[in-house]
Amino acid sequence: MLEEIENILKEWGPQIEKEIENSIPKKGVPGINDVVWYHIGTGGKRLRPVLAIMTGKALGCDVEKILPFAAACEVLHNWLLVHDDIQDGDEVRRGQPAVWKKYGLDHGINVGDFMSEKVYELILKSLERGVDEKTTIKLLDEIVKTSLRTAEGQAMEFELRKNNKPTEEEYIRMVVHKTAHYLTAPMVGAVVVANATQETIDKIREFGMKIGPAFQISDDLLDLTTGKGREDIGSDIREGKRSMMVVHCANNCSPEEKNQLFDILNKPRNETTKEDVLSVKNLFEKTGSMSYSQEQANKYMQESKDVISDMPDELRQLLENFAEYIVNRQR
Amino acid sequence: MLEEIENILKEWGPQIEKEIENSIPKKGVPGINDVVWYHIGTGGKRLRPVLAIMTGKALGCDVEKILPFAAACEVLHNWLLVHDDIQDGDEVRRGQPAVWKKYGLDHGINVGDFMSEKVYELILKSLERGVDEKTTIKLLDEIVKTSLRTAEGQAMEFELRKNNKPTEEEYIRMVVHKTAHYLTAPMVGAVVVANATQETIDKIREFGMKIGPAFQISDDLLDLTTGKGREDIGSDIREGKRSMMVVHCANNCSPEEKNQLFDILNKPRNETTKEDVLSVKNLFEKTGSMSYSQEQANKYMQESKDVISDMPDELRQLLENFAEYIVNRQR
Repeated sequence: MLEEIENILKEWGPQIEKEIENSIPKKGVPGINDVVWYHIGTGGKRLRPVLAIMTGKALGCDVEKILPFAAACEVLHNWLLVHDDIQDGDEVRRGQPAVWKKYGLDHGINVGDFMSEKVYELILKSLERGVDEKTTIKLLDEIVKTSLRTAEGQAMEFELRKNNKPTEEEYIRMVVHKTAHYLTAPMVGAVVVANATQETIDKIREFGMKIGPAFQISDDLLDLTTGKGREDIGSDIREGKRSMMVVHCANNCSPEEKNQLFDILNKPRNETTKEDVLSVKNLFEKTGSMSYSQEQANKYMQESKDVISDMPDELRQLLENFAEYIVNRQR
Repeated sequence: MLEEIENILKEWGPQIEKEIENSIPKKGVPGINDVVWYHIGTGGKRLRPVLAIMTGKALGCDVEKILPFAAACEVLHNWLLVHDDIQDGDEVRRGQPAVWKKYGLDHGINVGDFMSEKVYELILKSLERGVDEKTTIKLLDEIVKTSLRTAEGQAMEFELRKNNKPTEEEYIRMVVHKTAHYLTAPMVGAVVVANATQETIDKIREFGMKIGPAFQISDDLLDLTTGKGREDIGSDIREGKRSMMVVHCANNCSPEEKNQLFDILNKPRNETTKEDVLSVKNLFEKTGSMSYSQEQANKYMQESKDVISDMPDELRQLLENFAEYIVNRQR
């Protein structure tokens, strides 16, 4: 899958970039255009636009028609990160100062807002590529719903961080809201542009609701293994996130260990030491929470594959590869 | 005009509220729905939806068709305030704790984001009221453009606050971006739904670009007269805003007075004393900056009236009244 993603990026990456740049020129209002491109320039996998393009191609759709929506998905992903970093107090993004840290809180919020509106401007550009009004409205509606669920998921996560008795059910509900919808939107959008049947759209959405938790649980694990490119592992622990491991561990350790766990999670992030992170990681290993989480990620991946088992070969193969990539990626 | 606004509010206020509530139920995800309604419940003049309805009525348009867009304008106004309070460090809104102060910075940003997406959901509901797809897309496009200009204006304002040589030209450019577009959108939207000619749309926009500065300059003045319902006057001075008075004063006082002025404006807001605010106000009076600003507000109001002089009677009368209300209001 990595190779396929890279091939798509090689072929269409510059077009995605150009699509974004046409909408947000690199020069413009100081404190806006420069800031957007500072953030976009920090990198990222461009997973979402690639996913939209791949899905469209698998359905035989003209990629040019999908490009505005694909670019919109990348802008959506990026503005969510800009606001997310403020909300989580993350000072570093992709090895560089987060937008709010570099340009100030006021610009950080404002640039995220600006980008969130550009998402809609980009989708409206589909009309210039021969996507009809009805379909464009469907795309807009998809992004509205996705963004609303994502915001609800964010709120659920903030609330969950204050919760010392998090259940797996609460965790999954939060993850489906926060992660699944906006990982699914690029695929659904491509299917909509390709004019596929409602059944296909529903199936893709069902697939996404499984692949979302698989993605997030893998992400939870990566935070303690590769550290996702950050200098230190355990950023989630410093932030007090209720990860899949936290939920499992809290329900499988002694009362003393549980107190210790939440004492560390609930500390202000700048007071959390490396030793704290390691002691939590050791506890996760003792309670088998890391391997349990890996099993759960695999379980959701398997379920996602079951959903699409009777889809046309090319699309099914793509989605299967994607599902495996999600769970096996290293960053 | 106040009486007319109140009449419209009496007739349509509950419908506007219902429209918003249908889209954002009062109960839902904790940290979302409750927070939205806390903010909306703090009040506000509901000026924008009323303006949309009044404009539509003057053109003989069915109000039911305009309601979703009118409600969207109110939600737009409110989410901008939620984020604005964070950006400006304002802890009080309409006499009550600002959202971020009451629910935390994370929820504050997130709820603003949620509401900003609801703007689009509301506009899409126009389709259910018999507004066709082409017109709905025009409404979406109008709100996209409006929101983008507003964000650009915000960035201009943040930059202007670091500027100790602000010019009137920079001030007006910032105000047109930050204030004029989103005061104009309710009128333009109503005209679009009413299926008016492109010439009417252009005229309304031109009117808005004049009424915007009139509105903002009046707002600048109100901050030092009635205080806009806040406990103390001079919030803008504490925030270091480059108001019309600041711009005029800086270009008409002695070098020593100028240093004093910017020393106070550039202080962290919690270090600015009541005496500081009063000394700046006295300086404004000495340099005639308050009366100059009032003249400028009146000038823009007069120019806005000139733009619409050949419009149909009912619409022209409404807009003239609105222009006068903007400049003469007490809050």
